[in-house]
Amino acid sequence: MTDAPFKIAILGASGYTGAELVRLIANHPWMEIKALTADRKAGMTMAEVFPHLGHLDLPPLQRIEDLDFSALDLIFCALPHGATQELVSKLPETVKVVDLSADFRLRNPAEYKKWYGLDHTAVELQKTAVYGLPEFYRDEISGARLVANTGCYVATSLLALLPLLQAGVIDPDDIVIDAKSGVSGAGRAAKEAMLFTEVSEGFSAYGVGGHRHMGELDQEFSKAAGRPVLCAFTPHLIPINRAIFATIYVKGEADEIHQTLTAKYSGEPFIHVRAKGTVPRSHEVRGSNLCHIGVVADRRPGRSIVISTLDNLMKGASGQALQNANLMLGLPETMGLEAAPLFP
Amino acid sequence: MTDAPFKIAILGASGYTGAELVRLIANHPWMEIKALTADRKAGMTMAEVFPHLGHLDLPPLQRIEDLDFSALDLIFCALPHGATQELVSKLPETVKVVDLSADFRLRNPAEYKKWYGLDHTAVELQKTAVYGLPEFYRDEISGARLVANTGCYVATSLLALLPLLQAGVIDPDDIVIDAKSGVSGAGRAAKEAMLFTEVSEGFSAYGVGGHRHMGELDQEFSKAAGRPVLCAFTPHLIPINRAIFATIYVKGEADEIHQTLTAKYSGEPFIHVRAKGTVPRSHEVRGSNLCHIGVVADRRPGRSIVISTLDNLMKGASGQALQNANLMLGLPETMGLEAAPLFP
Amino acid sequence: MTDAPFKIAILGASGYTGAELVRLIANHPWMEIKALTADRKAGMTMAEVFPHLGHLDLPPLQRIEDLDFSALDLIFCALPHGATQELVSKLPETVKVVDLSADFRLRNPAEYKKWYGLDHTAVELQKTAVYGLPEFYRDEISGARLVANTGCYVATSLLALLPLLQAGVIDPDDIVIDAKSGVSGAGRAAKEAMLFTEVSEGFSAYGVGGHRHMGELDQEFSKAAGRPVLCAFTPHLIPINRAIFATIYVKGEADEIHQTLTAKYSGEPFIHVRAKGTVPRSHEVRGSNLCHIGVVADRRPGRSIVISTLDNLMKGASGQALQNANLMLGLPETMGLEAAPLFP
Amino acid sequence: MTDAPFKIAILGASGYTGAELVRLIANHPWMEIKALTADRKAGMTMAEVFPHLGHLDLPPLQRIEDLDFSALDLIFCALPHGATQELVSKLPETVKVVDLSADFRLRNPAEYKKWYGLDHTAVELQKTAVYGLPEFYRDEISGARLVANTGCYVATSLLALLPLLQAGVIDPDDIVIDAKSGVSGAGRAAKEAMLFTEVSEGFSAYGVGGHRHMGELDQEFSKAAGRPVLCAFTPHLIPINRAIFATIYVKGEADEIHQTLTAKYSGEPFIHVRAKGTVPRSHEVRGSNLCHIGVVADRRPGRSIVISTLDNLMKGASGQALQNANLMLGLPETMGLEAAPLFP
Repeated sequence: MTDAPFKIAILGASGYTGAELVRLIANHPWMEIKALTADRKAGMTMAEVFPHLGHLDLPPLQRIEDLDFSALDLIFCALPHGATQELVSKLPETVKVVDLSADFRLRNPAEYKKWYGLDHTAVELQKTAVYGLPEFYRDEISGARLVANTGCYVATSLLALLPLLQAGVIDPDDIVIDAKSGVSGAGRAAKEAMLFTEVSEGFSAYGVGGHRHMGELDQEFSKAAGRPVLCAFTPHLIPINRAIFATIYVKGEADEIHQTLTAKYSGEPFIHVRAKGTVPRSHEVRGSNLCHIGVVADRRPGRSIVISTLDNLMKGASGQALQNANLMLGLPETMGLEAAPLFP
Repeated sequence: MTDAPFKIAILGASGYTGAELVRLIANHPWMEIKALTADRKAGMTMAEVFPHLGHLDLPPLQRIEDLDFSALDLIFCALPHGATQELVSKLPETVKVVDLSADFRLRNPAEYKKWYGLDHTAVELQKTAVYGLPEFYRDEISGARLVANTGCYVATSLLALLPLLQAGVIDPDDIVIDAKSGVSGAGRAAKEAMLFTEVSEGFSAYGVGGHRHMGELDQEFSKAAGRPVLCAFTPHLIPINRAIFATIYVKGEADEIHQTLTAKYSGEPFIHVRAKGTVPRSHEVRGSNLCHIGVVADRRPGRSIVISTLDNLMKGASGQALQNANLMLGLPETMGLEAAPLFP
Repeated sequence: MTDAPFKIAILGASGYTGAELVRLIANHPWMEIKALTADRKAGMTMAEVFPHLGHLDLPPLQRIEDLDFSALDLIFCALPHGATQELVSKLPETVKVVDLSADFRLRNPAEYKKWYGLDHTAVELQKTAVYGLPEFYRDEISGARLVANTGCYVATSLLALLPLLQAGVIDPDDIVIDAKSGVSGAGRAAKEAMLFTEVSEGFSAYGVGGHRHMGELDQEFSKAAGRPVLCAFTPHLIPINRAIFATIYVKGEADEIHQTLTAKYSGEPFIHVRAKGTVPRSHEVRGSNLCHIGVVADRRPGRSIVISTLDNLMKGASGQALQNANLMLGLPETMGLEAAPLFP
Repeated sequence: MTDAPFKIAILGASGYTGAELVRLIANHPWMEIKALTADRKAGMTMAEVFPHLGHLDLPPLQRIEDLDFSALDLIFCALPHGATQELVSKLPETVKVVDLSADFRLRNPAEYKKWYGLDHTAVELQKTAVYGLPEFYRDEISGARLVANTGCYVATSLLALLPLLQAGVIDPDDIVIDAKSGVSGAGRAAKEAMLFTEVSEGFSAYGVGGHRHMGELDQEFSKAAGRPVLCAFTPHLIPINRAIFATIYVKGEADEIHQTLTAKYSGEPFIHVRAKGTVPRSHEVRGSNLCHIGVVADRRPGRSIVISTLDNLMKGASGQALQNANLMLGLPETMGLEAAPLFP
């Protein structure tokens, strides 16, 4: 640690994950926001774009092209998929990067092309990227220059299942992930499908049978199991702002599953395994960086139900990103992330 | 049909399913509400208990003991589980009964005791009860005196899966039903867990691993498959008023599943199978007696995802009950149930 | 009445008021939907645009230019402000028109220009238009060819205050209308401000100090009072789909106000004055064509609070439009509008 | 300040304001929670009552009778009205008290009896109580032993109007406060009226014409104006968890009002006056201790609309209480209250 705070920029600050990063870093004792960028909203103040941050002393939104990267210690990239690869390739080596997009998550460029429809333009850089799930890649993240922050659905699923696949206590060929997300995961772009009137008082599934996050799930599940894993995964939209809630059906004994998870996460500050037989509600983690996991025996012998939930803007995006950044900068991992959930 | 409208009573009119029956029957051309009962709220007017029905000309709420059953053609029983058995045993044979509780749904009294914790006190009567799912028991319902209306979760699941089990196009040993319900399914009793503050902006599971509706699912699934069927079933609470939404994971080919469902429901007024590969949203059936079903191929070969949704107070309870009553009284099955969904 | 149903078209059927008209008319025994138009969505089926109407047998969406107006008895225009004037000018005289836009509501073209920023292009036609508030213009509507349906905020306010201004029981110089609307009033266009994430779990005011509906309020209030009336009026956004709820502060005695309203509305099918001292909740009229009004004495002597609520898509728009159309076609005024509110 | 943290107890920790205090103090560097009480839930852990606080190391819930007050520096009383008076009378003088109930807010015992229906049992103690609105009673609070925390509706209204009444820029005889609250203000007790199904998708008024908070409003408004002030005040229920939103109609010039508020609050950390002509949304302060105020000229000459909003559990209750406690203990006023709003 230096004496002075680390100099931080947030690229893509006009979206919800960008605003969430500002909210968190505003009270972080060892980070200082030096620059904020936005594309269409460059020139505006953050107070105009997000009045809830209007009481903070923040730099105005500017265009990425006008940024002086040499003065920065670390940048958070909250840009659309595809935009980050080119940018990061051109940055000074001294700038660390936490990327919240999917651009550096998939090790296999063919998988990237399959799910995102784009050729990967920074394949060499990709090889240096560390997957940003601290509970499994803590050491690598601490030494990394470029961290690919996990997706929100994926983080929820991996935290529940990676220890189980690693320990071999569940059958890798029989995993069903029924996942539900709050609406903020869809971002702030104006779309008919995300209007209040289209979402409220309703429930729906999307991407049924094929969804972008599957590539990321496959990669990490297969690595943990040491063999290819193909799970069922269905995302749904809950008419609430914040949450990922995954109900996961596995073949495996509940006792063994619960013990494996408890052992794995006993020292983790953000992962809480609930008492066996009890399950968390999504609002019990809202606004915090926590992930709560519960395990219940299915009535079908030898099968279990694992429920995992987190706040998609926090442990599912910006909180996770800050956790990664703390590690990369040698700071205490929980710094700026201690807030308890906001309930109700 | 007689010249005059049929004389109807609704027992348990101070709950949501009771109020929904009043709403529906108020505009039914061949039914007339002659009596309404409520226990604690006896003596009050319906306008006091449900101001949204205050413009209707309705009888006051009275106690069941004060009812003259001899003047009635049909009663709807929307009473708590356990209360209906004794009551129906004492009724004149001339009164037809649609029971919305679970009291007469399970053919096996041991199953009733297992899930509801009560001895069945009307076992003989139970043998005469017809299971109230018109799409599968239409003829029996038409001739029945006592119909046991299906549960809301169960109706949603049966409508999706019974034709598939009957046709043998899915594996009975590999069924996962991830089900979600709106809050009105919990009734109007004041419970901390159902407060606005406890439910809104959140998502939760309950009865994980063991839920009362499983007995009913097992009974009908097993009958359709001709062998015991034990599915996984997890209910969740959505922060909305009305819906059941079931995401069902099965082993079977999507094409075959879609064809089987389409064939089965081609003439049904209330069941709509969506175009293959597309899925319904719950708010697309809200306020109507419709059930929408969609089928999508899972990316795992030989597996499929079936999504089924309905309004828990309508096709999941009171709408279904009226459909049954229409059949029992020889009326057109859709009478009073033609309203299109209310969206948004 | 003829033997055959009246032939109806709905212009602008891809918006929420258009869909609501379809929902209502689908079950109307004396109307038949012969044509539906939409601009950008022409060529699509209604089932694609509004899956909740997918079970109905409806004509496809077409462009207005391709419509044969000669075969129609009545059209509902649910087009944006400014689009209707030119269109109606060119229609055959035999076609009756209920216009849901603001184009023909204001008698004074200067007022129209002031609030909508457009020159009125059909001033002569405007003179023939009848203001579509049946409880006050029933006879004129019955004989009209062109009816200008009231705005939703305005209907709520007029129904509460017109009888009081006519009877002189409140001070026209001291009226504060604090009005709140559900989100469906903003339509289905994709706007950032109407995203679920921007609206839910929040409350806001808009158009504070100056809002388009003021011109319409001024016109009708002044006419009723026989002198210019300028009220305070503040619209707010409630995070719900359907409702207008107006809390109105007036100088006048509660007893006199309540009696005046009760007398005025005693025979009206859709307007219900609640018992004195009690007030309605907005969800007690949801989905119906009802307007509920309550009166309470303010603790400040000589002052009262009047609360008026209706469903903005029903009595505030499409329900009102159908009520007007029934009158124009010589049908019973309540036909197709008898549905009780949907609660919860 | 001592070297060690101050020892704190929260009485009534099983309610929402109690839980909010726990949430805030858990991260407060100079306070330590030594005891938590609850009546019916004594013996349970906080994790059982509020799982969202389950990751914190907290004392179990106990009965007040079992508390050792001598070891405490300050207690927060979040008990029902009427319960606090007797309790505080018996406490050691060394214990400071922030009372979140209404028990010590009203200087005149007759007013207390009028609005709460109870005789005041600690009239002498009442005389020593300081009204807990730091922006107006900062010095008195700093020296107080007993502070009566303001009500949530009242804080919202006072922050908007006290400076205007003090400065004489509005007419004290013409104030209309149309106020709206989130549901958490009703507490966690199981009541039918606060069920999700009764509140969601709806809007309602309550206490119209007479509400307990009026006594508190009258007291402070009259004191500020130097003469009796009687305003109109109508509370409403918004289907959201957190917020007070007050739309206030006054006679006075918007420029003068805006200048007066801006001058008054220029140095205040928690009160933000928005740019003239703009108004805040309630979700722009959610989860924070901020109050945002906006001023717009009414179209009626010489009249203005003031909008004031805050989070009812924060600046309206527990945040305010912590701000008061900080002052009473000689700590920086904003300590533990710096979190920016949670949006969306």
